[in-house]
Amino acid sequence: MTVDHNTPTLDRTDPEGAIAAAAERNRNWNRWGADDVRGTMNYLTQAHRAAAAALVRRGASFSLSQSFDMDGPQKGWRRRTNPVHTMLDTGTDAVAGVQGFPHGIGGADDVVSMPLQCSTQWDGLGHIFDHGVAWNGRPANEVVTSLGDGVTGIETVANGIAGRGVLLDVGRRFGTDGELPDGFAITTRHLESTMHAQDVAVGTGDLVLVRTGQLTRARRDGWGDYAGGAAPGLSFTTADWLHDSEIAAIATDTWGFEVRPNEFDVAFQPLHQVAIPNIGLFLGEMWDLDALAQDCAADGVYEFFLTAAPIPVTGAVGAPVNPIAVK
Amino acid sequence: MTVDHNTPTLDRTDPEGAIAAAAERNRNWNRWGADDVRGTMNYLTQAHRAAAAALVRRGASFSLSQSFDMDGPQKGWRRRTNPVHTMLDTGTDAVAGVQGFPHGIGGADDVVSMPLQCSTQWDGLGHIFDHGVAWNGRPANEVVTSLGDGVTGIETVANGIAGRGVLLDVGRRFGTDGELPDGFAITTRHLESTMHAQDVAVGTGDLVLVRTGQLTRARRDGWGDYAGGAAPGLSFTTADWLHDSEIAAIATDTWGFEVRPNEFDVAFQPLHQVAIPNIGLFLGEMWDLDALAQDCAADGVYEFFLTAAPIPVTGAVGAPVNPIAVK
Amino acid sequence: MTVDHNTPTLDRTDPEGAIAAAAERNRNWNRWGADDVRGTMNYLTQAHRAAAAALVRRGASFSLSQSFDMDGPQKGWRRRTNPVHTMLDTGTDAVAGVQGFPHGIGGADDVVSMPLQCSTQWDGLGHIFDHGVAWNGRPANEVVTSLGDGVTGIETVANGIAGRGVLLDVGRRFGTDGELPDGFAITTRHLESTMHAQDVAVGTGDLVLVRTGQLTRARRDGWGDYAGGAAPGLSFTTADWLHDSEIAAIATDTWGFEVRPNEFDVAFQPLHQVAIPNIGLFLGEMWDLDALAQDCAADGVYEFFLTAAPIPVTGAVGAPVNPIAVK
Amino acid sequence: MTVDHNTPTLDRTDPEGAIAAAAERNRNWNRWGADDVRGTMNYLTQAHRAAAAALVRRGASFSLSQSFDMDGPQKGWRRRTNPVHTMLDTGTDAVAGVQGFPHGIGGADDVVSMPLQCSTQWDGLGHIFDHGVAWNGRPANEVVTSLGDGVTGIETVANGIAGRGVLLDVGRRFGTDGELPDGFAITTRHLESTMHAQDVAVGTGDLVLVRTGQLTRARRDGWGDYAGGAAPGLSFTTADWLHDSEIAAIATDTWGFEVRPNEFDVAFQPLHQVAIPNIGLFLGEMWDLDALAQDCAADGVYEFFLTAAPIPVTGAVGAPVNPIAVK
Repeated sequence: MTVDHNTPTLDRTDPEGAIAAAAERNRNWNRWGADDVRGTMNYLTQAHRAAAAALVRRGASFSLSQSFDMDGPQKGWRRRTNPVHTMLDTGTDAVAGVQGFPHGIGGADDVVSMPLQCSTQWDGLGHIFDHGVAWNGRPANEVVTSLGDGVTGIETVANGIAGRGVLLDVGRRFGTDGELPDGFAITTRHLESTMHAQDVAVGTGDLVLVRTGQLTRARRDGWGDYAGGAAPGLSFTTADWLHDSEIAAIATDTWGFEVRPNEFDVAFQPLHQVAIPNIGLFLGEMWDLDALAQDCAADGVYEFFLTAAPIPVTGAVGAPVNPIAVK
Repeated sequence: MTVDHNTPTLDRTDPEGAIAAAAERNRNWNRWGADDVRGTMNYLTQAHRAAAAALVRRGASFSLSQSFDMDGPQKGWRRRTNPVHTMLDTGTDAVAGVQGFPHGIGGADDVVSMPLQCSTQWDGLGHIFDHGVAWNGRPANEVVTSLGDGVTGIETVANGIAGRGVLLDVGRRFGTDGELPDGFAITTRHLESTMHAQDVAVGTGDLVLVRTGQLTRARRDGWGDYAGGAAPGLSFTTADWLHDSEIAAIATDTWGFEVRPNEFDVAFQPLHQVAIPNIGLFLGEMWDLDALAQDCAADGVYEFFLTAAPIPVTGAVGAPVNPIAVK
Repeated sequence: MTVDHNTPTLDRTDPEGAIAAAAERNRNWNRWGADDVRGTMNYLTQAHRAAAAALVRRGASFSLSQSFDMDGPQKGWRRRTNPVHTMLDTGTDAVAGVQGFPHGIGGADDVVSMPLQCSTQWDGLGHIFDHGVAWNGRPANEVVTSLGDGVTGIETVANGIAGRGVLLDVGRRFGTDGELPDGFAITTRHLESTMHAQDVAVGTGDLVLVRTGQLTRARRDGWGDYAGGAAPGLSFTTADWLHDSEIAAIATDTWGFEVRPNEFDVAFQPLHQVAIPNIGLFLGEMWDLDALAQDCAADGVYEFFLTAAPIPVTGAVGAPVNPIAVK
Repeated sequence: MTVDHNTPTLDRTDPEGAIAAAAERNRNWNRWGADDVRGTMNYLTQAHRAAAAALVRRGASFSLSQSFDMDGPQKGWRRRTNPVHTMLDTGTDAVAGVQGFPHGIGGADDVVSMPLQCSTQWDGLGHIFDHGVAWNGRPANEVVTSLGDGVTGIETVANGIAGRGVLLDVGRRFGTDGELPDGFAITTRHLESTMHAQDVAVGTGDLVLVRTGQLTRARRDGWGDYAGGAAPGLSFTTADWLHDSEIAAIATDTWGFEVRPNEFDVAFQPLHQVAIPNIGLFLGEMWDLDALAQDCAADGVYEFFLTAAPIPVTGAVGAPVNPIAVK
């Protein structure tokens, strides 16, 4: 593992101050008007999307979704459970002749009950607040009530998350056997070094995928504390890069996007607090980047056409997604 | 409405016989080997996908998903309800100061409970059986139990439903103000006439979208019996076309894909019984094709790159999807 | 239907004023201390309970619960649906031999997803607020958050709702064929007249059941708007009687306990606003009183031992209950 | 711990044979007619119930229900999770002024999603099968399908589980500090010795509660493997006593009623296989008997009036219950 000597210094005792300063520097409120509900997704224009489609060469497609089932990592923290999938009708019923349909037709139907953040997902703009304020400066209690997010529900971006995807395989660049250790803080320098090594640039409107390798480890060793425990992830100090790069969204193969334990003595997801309500940035979590990463390592091409369309549950502050990368 | 004088004749009293004959003619079992779980999705090759990406010109994207919320059409038939979305945390909680997080961060999380066939969806290959037999000739009770579809669960095709989409706006071609009346049976002749009028061909591996206009009507007049009542849709007589055209999948803007009332005196979704377990065809239902159709009518281009990646609920016999068409 | 000439006069244009006055007159805050969480359930002492047990003569028992299933009256208002019951394992699976258990054992398990107010239920003390204030004067936002009712959750009374039940069959006394018409406001005079006719008294700590006959009608004619539409029920003017009588709880065979349409031009359940947060009274709704009422009419005995123990879902503001009356 | 030298001998290698023999000896099929759906609940007559009510002296009531919340013991085995309770409306919403109700009324509603066997519960007669056969000799696949138990659903006994309860505190009699160790098999001798020590008899129609002390231990030490792991419980050899005693039902403070590991080398809940489909006996699991046991130890009275009315989820094979014992 390469040691990074240039990590910006953080005062571990002052998350409030660091967050306030980073939020102030990077706040995008009103950048797209007072009524905006799409945040950084505004960067992803039709022109970017059209250009991204031209990245498709072989037609190989990769699902970046983890499974949605009871074998997932959730342990019930804040009532986040794994999905419970049950059947309304089955093949055993059909064969037993109890369905009552005519002419030999039989059927199976099913139901799912799940937290919208249980597996591969987008955080919506109503997912995190900064001192009671949501994206674009709106009071959080006027945005997200028990009825859901009435303003920035995930349905507001359901039609457009398709564009240029770029994989930054930081795990491969800086990890051992492709895996960063838990607690590894990915800084801007790590990101830039990875881009350089991969010979790929990140620009306005891109959908950036950061692979840490933690999921590879969990798949091999068991979930352990994947859902909420220590993990590699983005350093708080990348807030400025997240803003300045003008990316449309960023996703990781981890539960919580940012490095855990967080980089302050007492903190909870401080980078989220800057990124979502202040930058208006879409964060993806629990993405499975391994098959794609293997392909990228093989052909040296780290850019692709990415469609990551969330299920438009009206008013959702997060949403399950099956992202498809096509190369 | 143009009357079609060439509709094949069906004996309304003999669905068993008609289904058996159509199944016999169009059965694809073992076409892709005894272990196959992907059915007609096998037609959608990387080459097709790569060619499809070249259809993207402007970069305009269209979500073909209806909403997922309590305002949907479901009325509880066979326990199919509308999605129930509830919050685990809210902005009102955050502002009330009851969340207990440090440094001013607040959050919102949510949960959904829903039938997998409640809104825009793919039918999986385990959704329908023919006399107790599932896709590729497997006994239905060895495929779909209370634990779900252990063989052809939707996750088996979760990585690849991205390719050439073709919209056949039959509603616009044969309807009044773009809407076919309920009970209108779309025959092969209607499909071919629409292709001709739209100057577009359908071929192997395509993802075909058939717009009837019923959703347009429901949106204007209220759901009524959209979920399970009378509807325009594919005629049973299209079974051979569905097979011979070698399409990968087909979707409509209706609840049940095929015309309702069905074309036999006593019947329940007879075309499903041929299409899913025998042809191995993927059917999409409750898609919202209106915005895309408007664009296609405007520019005269009815083909596009379509990504329709289902949420991979393990073992699901159906799955919610937010299909994205890019032109 | 007997007309009641003595209904107290209400100013239909001033619900605010009427509610404030009734709340002021009947407020029980601090009656049982500042920490109280049981409200009027405090009236139901061990002595009352012991005396009530002596009412059991024949040992006949009556369930006062409606069914919990998809055939219920809920239509989705504010996401109140009927219960969705699904199976985790079935007999068809067991017989198909797919369960994998040893020595010939097979099993069935099940799951339910339901609003806690979907069928026969108790309203908890956290169910209704008066100008943002909950029972005993607590700020509602310190009592009921997205985590549930942290103070007066239904579990706080789960051990003690067993005592003397009294059925007041107002439907039989004042209705046609035992049924009050929708919109019929049951006043204190109606209650007293019914007690007189039935030769039964109501006193401190009693669990009072008021039968209107609306459920009888719904059972015969279909649900219609049973869940939220017009209904017979308690008049707003009974607030003082509800307080002064020192009953522990009161339940009806209707969706909403009080008469609907409510007795003000613009109002929503005004009697709840007095009864729950101010009196601290437990309200039962959607109870099935018909079989019990028939028995009471037959033997002329309208008092019994009643156990109505809610399922103690921690933090619930309402709770399903299967009340058992024993005579 | 007293060693019991008289435990009947079991051939640990032959569960099939032992189960078949015990089932043959104790089978109650057709005892109450071919159409019977109530099994041993038939023993609980009105006369028994009336006599039981006379056991109430002080009016002290005890809830025997564990909590229903995310802090429960379930770990997801066969999709048995802890209950997920979410809010449809909250006090924080009400105070934030976002509910839109008139005259200052605010409200809170809630939803639960839970396995019916997640916490304190009755096993219904459709819960277990013996070689594909359910209670009274019915084919299991004609009884319990994906639609639920269409014959012996828990609603069939919802009106009558109220009668004489008897607590057998075997933990207190044979345990250390009131707790039997995991793996302790309670035999008929243990039951009889406890009755003798407690000076109480068990007879026809009784509802018997067997306290092992395992819940006391779990409450102190954490759940551990309470849900499905090792536990004290009824020995397989009590099958004859369960039958001959003519009790109406029996419940324990453990997850699985019978001793675990089970008393055969390879087995899964063999006593259930005799008790439910053959004897037609109702089993209660996960009951909280501690407060009641403490009271019984204090006053030496181990009998009481017990109401244990399951929530009548139509077709349920198990059901949550809040049992209330009144002394």
